[in-house]
Amino acid sequence: MTYAAPVEEMAATLKAAAGLERAVADGLYGDLTVEDVTAVLEEAARFAGDVIAPLNRPGDAAGTPLENGVVTLPAAHREAYKAWAEAGWNALPGPEEFGGQGLPLVVSVACTEMWNAASMAFSLGPLLTIGAVEALEKHGSDELKERYLAKLVSGEWMGTMNLTEPQAGSDLAALRAKAERAGDGTYLITGTKIFITYGEHDLTDNIVHLVLARLPDAPAGTRGISLFLVPKILPDGSRNDLRCSGIEHKLGIHGSPTCTMSYGDDGGATGWLIGEENRGLACMFTMMNNARLNVGIQGVAIAERAYQGALAYAKERRQGRAPGASGPGMSPIIEHPDIRRMLLTMKAQTAASRAICYRTAAALDRARLAGDPAERERAAAQGALLTPVAKAYSTDIGVEVASLGIQVHGGMGFIEETGAAQHLRDSRIAPIYEGTNGIQAIDLVTRKLPLAGGEAVRAEIASMRATVRALMNKGEVFGMTAARLRDAVESLDRATSFLQRALAGNDPTAALAGATPYLRLFGLASGGTLLAEIALAAGADEAGAARIALCRFFAENIAVGAAGLEASVVDGGGFAVDAALALAS
Amino acid sequence: MTYAAPVEEMAATLKAAAGLERAVADGLYGDLTVEDVTAVLEEAARFAGDVIAPLNRPGDAAGTPLENGVVTLPAAHREAYKAWAEAGWNALPGPEEFGGQGLPLVVSVACTEMWNAASMAFSLGPLLTIGAVEALEKHGSDELKERYLAKLVSGEWMGTMNLTEPQAGSDLAALRAKAERAGDGTYLITGTKIFITYGEHDLTDNIVHLVLARLPDAPAGTRGISLFLVPKILPDGSRNDLRCSGIEHKLGIHGSPTCTMSYGDDGGATGWLIGEENRGLACMFTMMNNARLNVGIQGVAIAERAYQGALAYAKERRQGRAPGASGPGMSPIIEHPDIRRMLLTMKAQTAASRAICYRTAAALDRARLAGDPAERERAAAQGALLTPVAKAYSTDIGVEVASLGIQVHGGMGFIEETGAAQHLRDSRIAPIYEGTNGIQAIDLVTRKLPLAGGEAVRAEIASMRATVRALMNKGEVFGMTAARLRDAVESLDRATSFLQRALAGNDPTAALAGATPYLRLFGLASGGTLLAEIALAAGADEAGAARIALCRFFAENIAVGAAGLEASVVDGGGFAVDAALALAS
Repeated sequence: MTYAAPVEEMAATLKAAAGLERAVADGLYGDLTVEDVTAVLEEAARFAGDVIAPLNRPGDAAGTPLENGVVTLPAAHREAYKAWAEAGWNALPGPEEFGGQGLPLVVSVACTEMWNAASMAFSLGPLLTIGAVEALEKHGSDELKERYLAKLVSGEWMGTMNLTEPQAGSDLAALRAKAERAGDGTYLITGTKIFITYGEHDLTDNIVHLVLARLPDAPAGTRGISLFLVPKILPDGSRNDLRCSGIEHKLGIHGSPTCTMSYGDDGGATGWLIGEENRGLACMFTMMNNARLNVGIQGVAIAERAYQGALAYAKERRQGRAPGASGPGMSPIIEHPDIRRMLLTMKAQTAASRAICYRTAAALDRARLAGDPAERERAAAQGALLTPVAKAYSTDIGVEVASLGIQVHGGMGFIEETGAAQHLRDSRIAPIYEGTNGIQAIDLVTRKLPLAGGEAVRAEIASMRATVRALMNKGEVFGMTAARLRDAVESLDRATSFLQRALAGNDPTAALAGATPYLRLFGLASGGTLLAEIALAAGADEAGAARIALCRFFAENIAVGAAGLEASVVDGGGFAVDAALALAS
Repeated sequence: MTYAAPVEEMAATLKAAAGLERAVADGLYGDLTVEDVTAVLEEAARFAGDVIAPLNRPGDAAGTPLENGVVTLPAAHREAYKAWAEAGWNALPGPEEFGGQGLPLVVSVACTEMWNAASMAFSLGPLLTIGAVEALEKHGSDELKERYLAKLVSGEWMGTMNLTEPQAGSDLAALRAKAERAGDGTYLITGTKIFITYGEHDLTDNIVHLVLARLPDAPAGTRGISLFLVPKILPDGSRNDLRCSGIEHKLGIHGSPTCTMSYGDDGGATGWLIGEENRGLACMFTMMNNARLNVGIQGVAIAERAYQGALAYAKERRQGRAPGASGPGMSPIIEHPDIRRMLLTMKAQTAASRAICYRTAAALDRARLAGDPAERERAAAQGALLTPVAKAYSTDIGVEVASLGIQVHGGMGFIEETGAAQHLRDSRIAPIYEGTNGIQAIDLVTRKLPLAGGEAVRAEIASMRATVRALMNKGEVFGMTAARLRDAVESLDRATSFLQRALAGNDPTAALAGATPYLRLFGLASGGTLLAEIALAAGADEAGAARIALCRFFAENIAVGAAGLEASVVDGGGFAVDAALALAS
């Protein structure tokens, strides 16, 4: 039921899979040292374990009741949020100009992992605020920045993202919310938005809503959408014309209010334009890569929490006798080979997802901070390529690992008080929001594979091949790791070529139909080789041996799925023709 | 939100995958005709869709509150149960001598699929009653049979199974409930049982508990366990000394009461011995194969219901434009290749699981009803071999398909009122109860592979190979089906040989560690070839083309995972040594 952040493992991943030492040596992070990073992680781990983790079960049980437009969160949640913001955690990734600490993304995502592992429901509000800060910082007027940024950075106020409407989910072109020019430079916003995370709550005095809406003379489709800042409390202290008109009853994240927001029931909510008119979607997209990475991190986080719970249970619970058990009585179930396989699968998949996410963060950091423009461009392409993999692979793993966590608990896993079931319920949203995993896969195939004329994906595969070469002749302790990972990388390479040909040959159906297995294949090859990097960098001590064992387990038991995925990608086009037929009968 | 049983598909599966026509021709089922079977299925489909399916969401919301020892189910549930039993559905599989219809298992499992697809929570009570009937019929005294069987068969009373105690879940050797001889032929039962499905409720006037307990002079371990019949209401009409002392808050099946049962708080509950003293576990095992098959069917059922919900949503919901879409506006999401892949995966896995379960039922029927003793023996071995596959593969698929069903719904899938989330919550218990899926895999490897000197598994693989041969040169419409299924079957064959050698060479760790991927591999090869049998038997019409497309999708996109699973089984032994290490760090 508790959570202790695996700081050593996180640090090792930052070093071996995300190149932390090289980035520091390159001067990317100013005077930040590797030791500074570790110190931050240790401090965050304490806060996450001591203050946030205990909120998780009670918050799930309490929910977020709505009464007369007011959403009430548990008092413990309010207090923890206040302490968390006051300790400066909300400001960690924020721009220094507005009171933030301006720490790099690699540090921020590691902390984000901890907050979400401690309580995903608690951490969702701050995640949305980060997005609002980014959009405002990049596209807001000086006046808006002056008025809102410092308070959003400190966490005194929180932010939201209002995109979805009943008829406009994945397809924002269908968006109908309206904005009319008020004549004084402000706009009057009307419309209904659904699925608004932390749309209303009692954690902060003000809530800063970013709302997508259409001007009367806007062109149809996505080129006619503008972004507005619509605060709950107006600058003069009066209440804006917006309210929470409903709260969803969800499968999970019960501690995070998911609101239906009504704008302009009394004539129009006052909003300020962010960026240019009709360019709202571009403003959203600038922040979307980071938001997607942060959702990927949620998958890692839930997986880690579920793993820790299952591991603790498996050490304590005794049933039956394991093969070769000595001494009297029942064995701890962790000694049963099948339970061990489940725990190893959980740990290896969690570690692989983490490595992919951290590597993505490092690329996005380099894209922003490197001195050389060509290097920034290369890193930006790498970050863009890896982001959908980080989001979709990690959140799929979050669900799978949470489900395995229930299985390790046996009958107790199905009982809510154990906490294992909550992880599955909470995890299930992450493959859906911030772009469904199907959309991530399509993004990867149709937009990211062509990046830099295909050079981005070629470079990533080349890096995986270098890892495979480094594994050769590393001795028996690696078992079949090198061969299994080589096969996975070559499967990825062939599947990539197939998809590039399909795209070039204007066979979008085949490319789209193979997108999801292709993304999974990418994750296997990337995750496996990154675990190998971590194992190769490890010392000759027990922790090092453990990292080798984990990497080997992944290669021999999980990466072996690569060939089947390749077959599915390459033959995937064939089925789409017959598909309607099979579904119609 | 609704459910219409796929009667045609079920009938086609009974014919092609479960050999219904041959069984009828062989006279196994008396004067029952294939038309009779179809008529029963159609009637059951009507009842399941019209009466039971509407209970599913409200029952989930209402739960089963416990107050002063009384568990109350929704009035609609009580009425539906009464109508269901009065229509004779409870008596369908029961022995004719006690008012049952004595229909074969193949018919019973198809109906069980419908009841569970309509409402798993509703159907669990009757499933437990079937188990009680079997145990009583096979092992009960004439007096007990006379007193209880007819009422359990008709459904006037319901039955329960009381095995689990806090310290005794998968390992019944640790069981502590006590039974003392009262001196008048009855026994006094004391102890606490947990996770008792339908342990208390207001559907019937009496509840017949079957309880495992130990006599004072019983040997330790599983050879000292006896089985008792302990009715809620004693034959003289007075209340027995037992009560429901708690109700679990579970992830799913909220409409099914999961009770903590306290026996003998006031001195001892009166019980009657079933079978011989200390032979209780053997009594339980005689009914366990059928119970496991019925749980496998629950996986198929939930998968089918989730598929129907997702399919209906995908036809209706419009977002974006599918490749090649004509006409104005957004496309139904079913036209997007990635959504189509998810729906096809759902349908293909559901159909494969169904085929495995029905084939298992047919084997168990033949084992009981064939005239030739050698044939009965062969069929019994086949049924025993397939039962763990039917249970574990199908229930894993139930969870996976329910999860995909949420994904197809996008954000709406996470909202409880849609119903998709409930399927995931409900499905998640099936891989756990009636022997966890890990235990099923171990049973398959350690007890079932050696059956008949290995002949049972060899015969099953030979049958798969025959299907592959029949697929050769069947034309382009089958695509790579034959090659993919051949590869899967040969992977299964090699993995089988590996495990048999490991068992013979006394390397139980390697065999146990590979059990779970082996079972999955078995399911892929078996499910794929059975779908091929259904496709080969189909007509040259549209429905036939649809069956070919589905089989081809399974072969090209799902069965291709076989090679990776084989690798995991065969190299599985290696990791177990390093495992503790990786988990300790």
